[in-house]
Amino acid sequence: MPHPISRFPVPTLEALPDDLRERILAVQEKAGFVPNIFLALAHRPDEFRAFFAYHDALLLRESGLSKGEKEMIIVATSGANRCLYCVVAHGAILRIYEKSPLIADQLATNPMKADITPRQKAMLAFALKVCSDAQNVGESDYAALHAHGFTDEDIWDIGAITALFGLSNRMANLVSLRPNDEFYLLGRVPKAAR
Amino acid sequence: MPHPISRFPVPTLEALPDDLRERILAVQEKAGFVPNIFLALAHRPDEFRAFFAYHDALLLRESGLSKGEKEMIIVATSGANRCLYCVVAHGAILRIYEKSPLIADQLATNPMKADITPRQKAMLAFALKVCSDAQNVGESDYAALHAHGFTDEDIWDIGAITALFGLSNRMANLVSLRPNDEFYLLGRVPKAAR
Amino acid sequence: MPHPISRFPVPTLEALPDDLRERILAVQEKAGFVPNIFLALAHRPDEFRAFFAYHDALLLRESGLSKGEKEMIIVATSGANRCLYCVVAHGAILRIYEKSPLIADQLATNPMKADITPRQKAMLAFALKVCSDAQNVGESDYAALHAHGFTDEDIWDIGAITALFGLSNRMANLVSLRPNDEFYLLGRVPKAAR
Amino acid sequence: MPHPISRFPVPTLEALPDDLRERILAVQEKAGFVPNIFLALAHRPDEFRAFFAYHDALLLRESGLSKGEKEMIIVATSGANRCLYCVVAHGAILRIYEKSPLIADQLATNPMKADITPRQKAMLAFALKVCSDAQNVGESDYAALHAHGFTDEDIWDIGAITALFGLSNRMANLVSLRPNDEFYLLGRVPKAAR
Amino acid sequence: MPHPISRFPVPTLEALPDDLRERILAVQEKAGFVPNIFLALAHRPDEFRAFFAYHDALLLRESGLSKGEKEMIIVATSGANRCLYCVVAHGAILRIYEKSPLIADQLATNPMKADITPRQKAMLAFALKVCSDAQNVGESDYAALHAHGFTDEDIWDIGAITALFGLSNRMANLVSLRPNDEFYLLGRVPKAAR
Amino acid sequence: MPHPISRFPVPTLEALPDDLRERILAVQEKAGFVPNIFLALAHRPDEFRAFFAYHDALLLRESGLSKGEKEMIIVATSGANRCLYCVVAHGAILRIYEKSPLIADQLATNPMKADITPRQKAMLAFALKVCSDAQNVGESDYAALHAHGFTDEDIWDIGAITALFGLSNRMANLVSLRPNDEFYLLGRVPKAAR
Repeated sequence: MPHPISRFPVPTLEALPDDLRERILAVQEKAGFVPNIFLALAHRPDEFRAFFAYHDALLLRESGLSKGEKEMIIVATSGANRCLYCVVAHGAILRIYEKSPLIADQLATNPMKADITPRQKAMLAFALKVCSDAQNVGESDYAALHAHGFTDEDIWDIGAITALFGLSNRMANLVSLRPNDEFYLLGRVPKAAR
Repeated sequence: MPHPISRFPVPTLEALPDDLRERILAVQEKAGFVPNIFLALAHRPDEFRAFFAYHDALLLRESGLSKGEKEMIIVATSGANRCLYCVVAHGAILRIYEKSPLIADQLATNPMKADITPRQKAMLAFALKVCSDAQNVGESDYAALHAHGFTDEDIWDIGAITALFGLSNRMANLVSLRPNDEFYLLGRVPKAAR
Repeated sequence: MPHPISRFPVPTLEALPDDLRERILAVQEKAGFVPNIFLALAHRPDEFRAFFAYHDALLLRESGLSKGEKEMIIVATSGANRCLYCVVAHGAILRIYEKSPLIADQLATNPMKADITPRQKAMLAFALKVCSDAQNVGESDYAALHAHGFTDEDIWDIGAITALFGLSNRMANLVSLRPNDEFYLLGRVPKAAR
Repeated sequence: MPHPISRFPVPTLEALPDDLRERILAVQEKAGFVPNIFLALAHRPDEFRAFFAYHDALLLRESGLSKGEKEMIIVATSGANRCLYCVVAHGAILRIYEKSPLIADQLATNPMKADITPRQKAMLAFALKVCSDAQNVGESDYAALHAHGFTDEDIWDIGAITALFGLSNRMANLVSLRPNDEFYLLGRVPKAAR
Repeated sequence: MPHPISRFPVPTLEALPDDLRERILAVQEKAGFVPNIFLALAHRPDEFRAFFAYHDALLLRESGLSKGEKEMIIVATSGANRCLYCVVAHGAILRIYEKSPLIADQLATNPMKADITPRQKAMLAFALKVCSDAQNVGESDYAALHAHGFTDEDIWDIGAITALFGLSNRMANLVSLRPNDEFYLLGRVPKAAR
Repeated sequence: MPHPISRFPVPTLEALPDDLRERILAVQEKAGFVPNIFLALAHRPDEFRAFFAYHDALLLRESGLSKGEKEMIIVATSGANRCLYCVVAHGAILRIYEKSPLIADQLATNPMKADITPRQKAMLAFALKVCSDAQNVGESDYAALHAHGFTDEDIWDIGAITALFGLSNRMANLVSLRPNDEFYLLGRVPKAAR
């Protein structure tokens, strides 16, 4: 492969602890390839486990946010943080969840111009404030989301997903994590055409 | 069409002055569709003519920059300016010119992580300074480009393309110019597959 | 001349294409001198033609904005962009149009402290948002101008003038365009005193 | 207690899953009180587990950074992120580790004025870049740390601690996490005097 | 003393003009030590006199602001300006005036999370705008303070204290003014315990 | 006069303490008019005295900086702070000291484009860092000025003038201090022509 996927060493599957290898094989089974974040973080198995435990706690959790809305938060804040890996990889997931080939590029570039609802725009405005100016988040920001029907637990979800992917964005930029080529096209064309 | 292409009125082809209609029909002939910028700017024919005259003067001109490099400047600075139309439309053109399905998303998100040469990274660093901090461009910035073999005329091109698309980015955000759906996929898949 | 007017070569009048020379002689006839922007841009005749075509399309156009108000936009946004040429040259034009020796320095330094109407302050607040944060311009910004009686066409004018002079400001900073000494004093003293 | 420790519900110890209660009792045994972060995050047990797993993976790990240096990173970046909880709580830990009553206030306010080594200043400059501008971290930043003897693994530690506490800072500001009163004084006076 | 208190020469008490020495001895008598700002500024006696005359004019003046509130402004804006000396020295004074061991760290780090009244938060929001964005202070900012019962004279006090300590913060950062070790602990523990 | 010179009450000369009235009459004698800063600050006589004592201590002091260079610092930093009064009033003084009708507009708009020496550009780069980012001023900034022959005492002057006019700029923006009309033209035309 001409381009390294990380600035740091990437372990082979054989060299990994069993639990990491099993998780990686499972995702490969499902996606058809191994997303590079799994290989790059596997350089530090304890951090790998903690990151994906956090990830699952937030993304697999029942919530007032749909799975697509959670990905909207990830793509919009990763765009703000200029994180290539998360924009491309979660952009693909978002396109699939929302069955929309356009939405990821819209949200990564300028959420104000995206084909989303006013409720979703309010959600992303909150997420972007947590992303870039968390110190000034206050009751008026909570009230703006309550007005759209979000509960406090939903707001924790919005803030926590933003915070976790703020971590992820910084790690990806730190190690120059490269998105798999496959992600760029996923969800852009009907399955048959691929 | 469910989504308007501009916040302002968009003229029909029939209602346009002959020269505008001819240019639009020519681009439609070549691209297979009419890029929305043509229709949105046609609301003001004199500004349409001036914009495309400027565009042609810079993009069709012989230069030390390749056609692909000129599009790199447009995509990277439009990403910095958060202009959805230019990121998507010129991203498509860039993919085609560079025969690279990945480069546009890389440059729009984070030029430091793109598969380009050090010379091209220097070019984009200069463009991004003209884009966001032109007041502080000085001789040391020129020297950095000279060290990569760029001439003063090349530097004018870099700066002027950045300046023209800074205008374009502002207009597109002002009128909420919508990229044609076709652009999102162009250059991402082999021609046969489309 | 001790100070160059541009970092790039400046053509002699004789060396210019006829249409450029004619335009330059006409402006010299009217102003008494040739504003340096004409000479600096003449280094690239096609770009010269496109720039002045755009300029005329916006500044000579009938509009809900007065000629003085258009210059207010130019001076305030050029101040924000730290463009010496446009602050000084268009400051002179603004003083003459508004018959006010004070207004240009006020607007270039701090529009909030200028002797203008609340309607004009709203116009400039919009222009400055297009200048520095176009990505976040939205319906509430339009509504704020509608409340002062501006039409959508007026708003296009405000945004487009800002965008065009954003281009001009970047070019002027790129080439270190020097204002003619004459501009500094124009409109500051009664005609007889000069 | 007049001031809530979190904007969200805080569970009683009895209501907690066993593993959380045990960890909390252990920290109480050691510190003499329960740091509020444990109670606030216990509102979401899965996120609690993931956060502390990540925390332990980074802070308990053998590293080229001393325990005090890891806390320096936390305090300096939490100061930049304006996170009251982390500045106060980790400031206390830092004072104890470094046996310095002054260092935490110095680092939270202005790392350039702190009583630390040039090597440590370089470490914090890198951390602050990951904190606020990760998108522009590149090889020259790595080289600057290599020059001070940091290895790539040390740099991962610096970046990852910054990223994890960026998450923590955002969560603390999101829920208005209140530092325990005890932290403010810890490490400022000899043990006998308390 | 291992750490210099200023990057510039610091005069001995004997070498000082009488009026400076007398003021310094008086403050030493009261505080038990000589705050380093007195020694550092004594390098320039005329500037010393002017600074403390300004200081006294604002801080000793009868006002709608309490002495504690004036110190709140100093600590919050010095935190924004990242001035170690003023955060530590005036933090001590603030703790003593407000009889609160917590308030200084709260205000220096994030005023939104401090144990203060809504009226005091409005006061600090105004001060922080004068500190960082005075150019945009306008009538709506005055109105927000009037709504909390502040008079125009109170607002002058808020703005002028912010402006004076903006000067002080810049001088302290310029000369690397070191806070006296004593300040760090003042007001944190009951008098008997010290 | 249609435009108030300050948002706050302005005392009559008769109502002033003797020392203030005398200073004001002296400046009126010399300048031919009373600069509005004197009248606006006279609303608070003790602050008036302190401000002008500080002003005189710095501006009348023997220094490695010429009188014109001190005014360059004031004009450039007041431009950065968007302070209309100081840009216009000190711009006039600067034009007179430097016998240059152009220099004030150049420095207030963009010091990089001004007709000044490299040494003066270095001086202003330092002043602008103290103005906008004093927290990061360090030894490398001192070294850059030493390389141009500035002494440490000169650097104190540069920093202190910047700090004092940072105070002045904030007060002027706070009270909407209006420049006297006379200042706008001073130093722009030969004395005979006025």
